[in-house]
Amino acid sequence: MKNYSVRTDLALEEKERFASDNVEVQGVVLEEEYDEENEIRLTRVVIETENGAKIMGKPTGIYLTLESPDLALEVEENSRVLQERICDCIRELIFHKISCEDGKELKILFVGLGNRAVTPDALGPYVADHLEVNRHIVKEYGKYAMRTEQLIVLSAIVPGVMGQTGMETAEIVRGIVYETKPDLILAVDALAARNSRRLNRTIQIADTGIHPGSGVGNYRNAMTEESLGVPVIGIGVPTVVDAATIVNDTMENFITALEQSQALRSTGEILRSYSPAEKYEFVKELISPHLNGMFVTPKDVDEMVHQISHTIAASLNLLFSDINAGESE
Amino acid sequence: MKNYSVRTDLALEEKERFASDNVEVQGVVLEEEYDEENEIRLTRVVIETENGAKIMGKPTGIYLTLESPDLALEVEENSRVLQERICDCIRELIFHKISCEDGKELKILFVGLGNRAVTPDALGPYVADHLEVNRHIVKEYGKYAMRTEQLIVLSAIVPGVMGQTGMETAEIVRGIVYETKPDLILAVDALAARNSRRLNRTIQIADTGIHPGSGVGNYRNAMTEESLGVPVIGIGVPTVVDAATIVNDTMENFITALEQSQALRSTGEILRSYSPAEKYEFVKELISPHLNGMFVTPKDVDEMVHQISHTIAASLNLLFSDINAGESE
Amino acid sequence: MKNYSVRTDLALEEKERFASDNVEVQGVVLEEEYDEENEIRLTRVVIETENGAKIMGKPTGIYLTLESPDLALEVEENSRVLQERICDCIRELIFHKISCEDGKELKILFVGLGNRAVTPDALGPYVADHLEVNRHIVKEYGKYAMRTEQLIVLSAIVPGVMGQTGMETAEIVRGIVYETKPDLILAVDALAARNSRRLNRTIQIADTGIHPGSGVGNYRNAMTEESLGVPVIGIGVPTVVDAATIVNDTMENFITALEQSQALRSTGEILRSYSPAEKYEFVKELISPHLNGMFVTPKDVDEMVHQISHTIAASLNLLFSDINAGESE
Amino acid sequence: MKNYSVRTDLALEEKERFASDNVEVQGVVLEEEYDEENEIRLTRVVIETENGAKIMGKPTGIYLTLESPDLALEVEENSRVLQERICDCIRELIFHKISCEDGKELKILFVGLGNRAVTPDALGPYVADHLEVNRHIVKEYGKYAMRTEQLIVLSAIVPGVMGQTGMETAEIVRGIVYETKPDLILAVDALAARNSRRLNRTIQIADTGIHPGSGVGNYRNAMTEESLGVPVIGIGVPTVVDAATIVNDTMENFITALEQSQALRSTGEILRSYSPAEKYEFVKELISPHLNGMFVTPKDVDEMVHQISHTIAASLNLLFSDINAGESE
Repeated sequence: MKNYSVRTDLALEEKERFASDNVEVQGVVLEEEYDEENEIRLTRVVIETENGAKIMGKPTGIYLTLESPDLALEVEENSRVLQERICDCIRELIFHKISCEDGKELKILFVGLGNRAVTPDALGPYVADHLEVNRHIVKEYGKYAMRTEQLIVLSAIVPGVMGQTGMETAEIVRGIVYETKPDLILAVDALAARNSRRLNRTIQIADTGIHPGSGVGNYRNAMTEESLGVPVIGIGVPTVVDAATIVNDTMENFITALEQSQALRSTGEILRSYSPAEKYEFVKELISPHLNGMFVTPKDVDEMVHQISHTIAASLNLLFSDINAGESE
Repeated sequence: MKNYSVRTDLALEEKERFASDNVEVQGVVLEEEYDEENEIRLTRVVIETENGAKIMGKPTGIYLTLESPDLALEVEENSRVLQERICDCIRELIFHKISCEDGKELKILFVGLGNRAVTPDALGPYVADHLEVNRHIVKEYGKYAMRTEQLIVLSAIVPGVMGQTGMETAEIVRGIVYETKPDLILAVDALAARNSRRLNRTIQIADTGIHPGSGVGNYRNAMTEESLGVPVIGIGVPTVVDAATIVNDTMENFITALEQSQALRSTGEILRSYSPAEKYEFVKELISPHLNGMFVTPKDVDEMVHQISHTIAASLNLLFSDINAGESE
Repeated sequence: MKNYSVRTDLALEEKERFASDNVEVQGVVLEEEYDEENEIRLTRVVIETENGAKIMGKPTGIYLTLESPDLALEVEENSRVLQERICDCIRELIFHKISCEDGKELKILFVGLGNRAVTPDALGPYVADHLEVNRHIVKEYGKYAMRTEQLIVLSAIVPGVMGQTGMETAEIVRGIVYETKPDLILAVDALAARNSRRLNRTIQIADTGIHPGSGVGNYRNAMTEESLGVPVIGIGVPTVVDAATIVNDTMENFITALEQSQALRSTGEILRSYSPAEKYEFVKELISPHLNGMFVTPKDVDEMVHQISHTIAASLNLLFSDINAGESE
Repeated sequence: MKNYSVRTDLALEEKERFASDNVEVQGVVLEEEYDEENEIRLTRVVIETENGAKIMGKPTGIYLTLESPDLALEVEENSRVLQERICDCIRELIFHKISCEDGKELKILFVGLGNRAVTPDALGPYVADHLEVNRHIVKEYGKYAMRTEQLIVLSAIVPGVMGQTGMETAEIVRGIVYETKPDLILAVDALAARNSRRLNRTIQIADTGIHPGSGVGNYRNAMTEESLGVPVIGIGVPTVVDAATIVNDTMENFITALEQSQALRSTGEILRSYSPAEKYEFVKELISPHLNGMFVTPKDVDEMVHQISHTIAASLNLLFSDINAGESE
C-alpha cells in the first residue's frame, strides 16, 4: 500500500501512525515509561525483524525517545535529571554496540551535522561548539595528561552540508574515519517531526545512526555503520515540521469536522473510507507546489536551538567525564 | 464582519483578496505594468481615502511592489536593471515625502529591522552590513571630504528585537531621531506573505513606513511618521509565510476539490456558501494550536536572504551615489 | 611635561606608573586586598580631587579592579566566589551613585559596547546576548509578572561602533535614555591594558563610566553621567594591548640589559637618566608608523572573550536576582 | 647558526632578510616586476636547490607574491586587473604541477584553513563561503548540467582548527582526499608577516602548499603533496604579525638610534657586531614571556579580512569559469 503520509525522522511517530489504527506491528516492540515528578517520558521502540523494519520504514535497531518540556530550558534551570537521563540513554546504546574493556580508551568522533547558517539546522554545529575535544592532547602528551582518569578520546567535526561542500557528508566522515580510526561515531542532527507539538521538546537516540529524512537540509545521506564502517549513535531533535505535513493535518481535521456536522456527515464518511492513496489522488493537484522544500518552524527557533545545544552538550560532558558509571551499577 | 483571513504585510495581497471576488475597492487605485524583457512586474497600490484604508487594513499611502525572479540572484548575475528599478521606486517615494533643494544635504537614517540570529528575519541587519555610512566623516571633515559631491549623509542602526532589548524598536529609533535629527528614515524589514509563491522574489516599498504585521518577529511596533516624527520609507521582502496561511490555503483547495467531484459536489457548494467567519467557526477547533507562532520558510532561506540583502544594498548604493538623477529627468 | 607613556584604560595601571617611581599621588587613595584562598586581588583606586584626576589622567571617582586567573575559565569551573565578588563590586558602586528605596523598581539600561565582528572587541555584545531583559514584560504585565519579587527592570542595547553607524555611541545611547528614562546605565567594554600580563584576567568596575581610551575600537566617546544624563557604571576587561606598548616595554627592557652588562653599563645609565620625553625624542622616528592602529592580542582570544562574557553575565544575573542582598547586611 | 629572527610565512621576507645583508643566496632566484599603472608588484622567488631550501627555511618550489594596496578594497572598486593577476598566478602554478588534457575535467578540492571565530584567522573560511561548489551537481547530472563547458569540478571543506576538532587539519584533509580523489588542492590561509607594512596588501601563491608557520592558529600542520598525496597550491595573505617581531624590530631600531647618537655610538657599534644569537642571549630574559602566543593585528581587521576574501573568491571564480584561457595563449 502506497502511503502518502509525510515522512518523519522519529521512530516514535512512525509507530504512532499504526497505533492510531490499533494495528500491532509484528517485529516492533514499544515500551513507554513516564517519570511524573520530572515530566520526562521515555519511549523505547525496538525494531527487531526485517519485516518490522519494512513496515516502519526504518532499519532494525533501538530507538530511545525522551520527551520533556525542559529540553529547551536554560541549562542552569534545566533539571539535571533530564541531562542524566539523556546521558544514560546514550551510554546504554554505546555499550550495546561496543564493549569497552577496563582501562582501555574509547575513541569517539563527534559529528555535528547540519548547516550553521540556517537557524533550525544549526543544532549539530552548536553542540560541537560546546564540546571539549582532547584527542590532540592525548596524542601529544598521553592519556595521563588528562585531569581525570579519562577513558574517552574525543575528536569532532562539523562537515557542512552538500550545497557548501559539493560532497556527501558521508564521504567526508568516511575519509576522516579512515584516517583517524575512531571506535564509534556520535552524530547530532536537527530532525523533522510529523507533529508540531514535538518540536524542541523531543530527543531521539538511536543505535542505527542517521538516515536520510525530511530534515531541514536537502540530500542528506545515511550516516550508518554500513556507510561509515564503525557504529553510529544518532542523536536527533526535531526543530522543523515539513510544510506538507501541515496540509495533511489540515485535511484530516477537515474530514473530522465534516463527520461531526449533521449536514455534511456523509461526505466526511465517504472521504474517511478513502485509502491514503485515494485521498492523495483527490487533492494532489491542489497542494501548492510552492510548498516543496519549505519547512515550518517556531519564531523563537534561535533561542530554542541554542538552549537545546547546551542541554545536549551538558549531557555529553556528563557522559565523557564518567563513561563507565552506568556500567558498574 | 470578522474576517479570518490571515494577515499579509503586502498591500498587493490585500488588494488581491478583493480582486479575486471581483470587488472594486473604493478609494484604492491599482496599476500594474510588466517589463517582459526583464521579467519585472511593478504594481502600484495607492490607498487614497480613509475608507480605502479601512477596507485594506493598511494606512493611506503609496505601495510599490516589484516582483522578479532575479531578486535573490547573486548580485553579479543580477540584472542591473532590477537594481535600477528598485532605486527608482525608493527615490520616487523619498521625493514624494520631502523636497530636497539643490546642494542641500539630505540626512537619512537607515534602520535594519529584525533579528540577526534568526535567518529569515535577518534581512534588515544584513543590508546594514553592506552600507557605507558617512555621517561621522561629514561631521568631522565636512561634506567636501566625500569623494563625489555627495548629498546624502547616511547613518544606520540595527536596533535588535524586543526580546533582546526589552524596548520597543520604535522607542529606540525615536530616541536616535531625537538626538541626530535625520530628514528621513529608510527601514528594511523581512515580511510575511500570504502566498508562498511570493517569497524571496517580491519587494514592497511604501511611503507609510513599517506596520506591525505577521512577520517573523513578534510584537513589532509601527515605524511611521506618526510614531517617529520624520517620514519613513518602508522596504520589505517577504521571507516567510505564516503557518496558519497554509491551513487556510489547504481548506480552500479542499473545497474546490469537493466541488469538482461528482459525488461530493453538494458539500463543496455548501461550504463555499459559508462566509469566512462561518468557515472559521467550522474548523477553528481543529486547527492545531501548536501552529501559533510558527512560520513557513524555504530550506535555502539562508542563501536567499544573503543574496537579497546584497541586491537591496546595491540599489541603495546606486541611490546614495546619485540621489537626484531621477529628479532632473 | 609631555609623557610618552602609552595610555591605559586601567586606573590601576596609571597608579602603578607612579608607584614604580615611589611617588605618592596627592588626592589618590590606593587600597589593595588579596584573597589568597580564591586567588582574587581587589584593588581600590579612589581619585578624590581634581588634582589627582589631572595627574592620573582619569576623572574623580571609584575604580575597583579584580584580578583573578579564574576570570576566563568556563562558568561551571569558575569559582562562584569570583562571580559574587564581581557582583558585590557592581552593587557597591550602584548604591554609591543612587539610593534605591524599598520596593521601588530600579530601571537599568545595559549597554554592550564594541564591535561584534572583531573578536577582542566583542565582549560587550556577547554579555548582552546572555542577559534576560524584562522591561517589555514588566511594561505589559506589571512587575507582578516576574517570578521573584524582582526590583530590577532591565533593558539592553548593542549600539555598534561609529564605523558601522555613522553616529557616536553616546548619541545613540543618549537618545535611548531620553526615550526610556533608565535610572542608571551599566556599560561593558573591552579595554586596552598597558601590560600583557593583565589581559583576560582583570576586570575594572568604575562609577565614572567609560572613557575614550586606547581600546580596540576607534573614536570611542565618553559614556558618562555628563554626556548621558544618568549615572554610568563602567565594567571593563582588557583584551588587547596597544602595539606601541610593546615597543616601550622592549626599550625599557633593553636599557635594563645594558645596565646589567659590564661593557655597556654607561650607556644604560645615560639612557636611564633621560626623561620619558627625552627617550621618546630619541626613538620616535624609529617606531614603525605602521604600528599605529594596531593591537596585540592572544591567539586564543575567541575562547577567552566568550568565557569572560559568561562570567560577567553570571555576575550580573546574580545581581539582578538579588539587588538588595548586600545592602541589608 | 641559530637564528633568532622571527619566522615569516612569506618567502619574500625570508629573501629580504638576506638581501638586506647583500648576500646572494645560492639556489634561490628572485625576480621582481612592477606594474606602475596598476600599482601591483609581482615578486617571484624560486627555491631551486636543497641548499637554497635550507638557507631559506622553506621547501624548494615557486613562490609568487603580489603586493597591491587594492587587495583589501571593496570588490567593485577593486581593479579587475588585480583579480586577473591573482588568477594568472594560480593558473600558472596549477599547470606547473599538473597537465590538464583537453576536455578532461579537473577535480579541485578547496580547503579554507583557519578559525572562523577569530577574525584575523577567518580568511580561509570566508573565501569558502563565496565559492560555488559543483561536484555534487556534476556527480548527479553529469558535466552537461553545467551552464558553461565547465572543466572544473569543485568541492570545498572548512576543516576547523585542532583546538576545535582534536585532529590535525592534515588528517582531516587526507581522509577527504582518500575518499574523493581530487587532482589538486587549493588551500587558503591567513599568514603571519614579519613586517606590519605587508599586512592585508600582500598575497603569496606557492606550489609548495601550506607550511607550519607563525600564523594565527597554533600547531598547524603542513598541507603539502607529501602529506596529502596530491599537489597543493597554497594561497596566503598575512593578516597578523607575531608580537615577538615587534620586539625584534624595536631592538634593531634602538641599536640604529644608538649608532647615530654622538654619545652612545660605541654601544651601538658593539651591539651591531653581535651575531643574532648573541643579541638574542643579551635580551632573551627581558622579552616578556606573556608575548608568547600573542599576535599584532590592525583595528579594522574585520573589514580587511572580509574584503580580501571577496577579492580572492572573485579571482578563483574567474579561474574556474575559464581555466584554460591562459594556457591557449
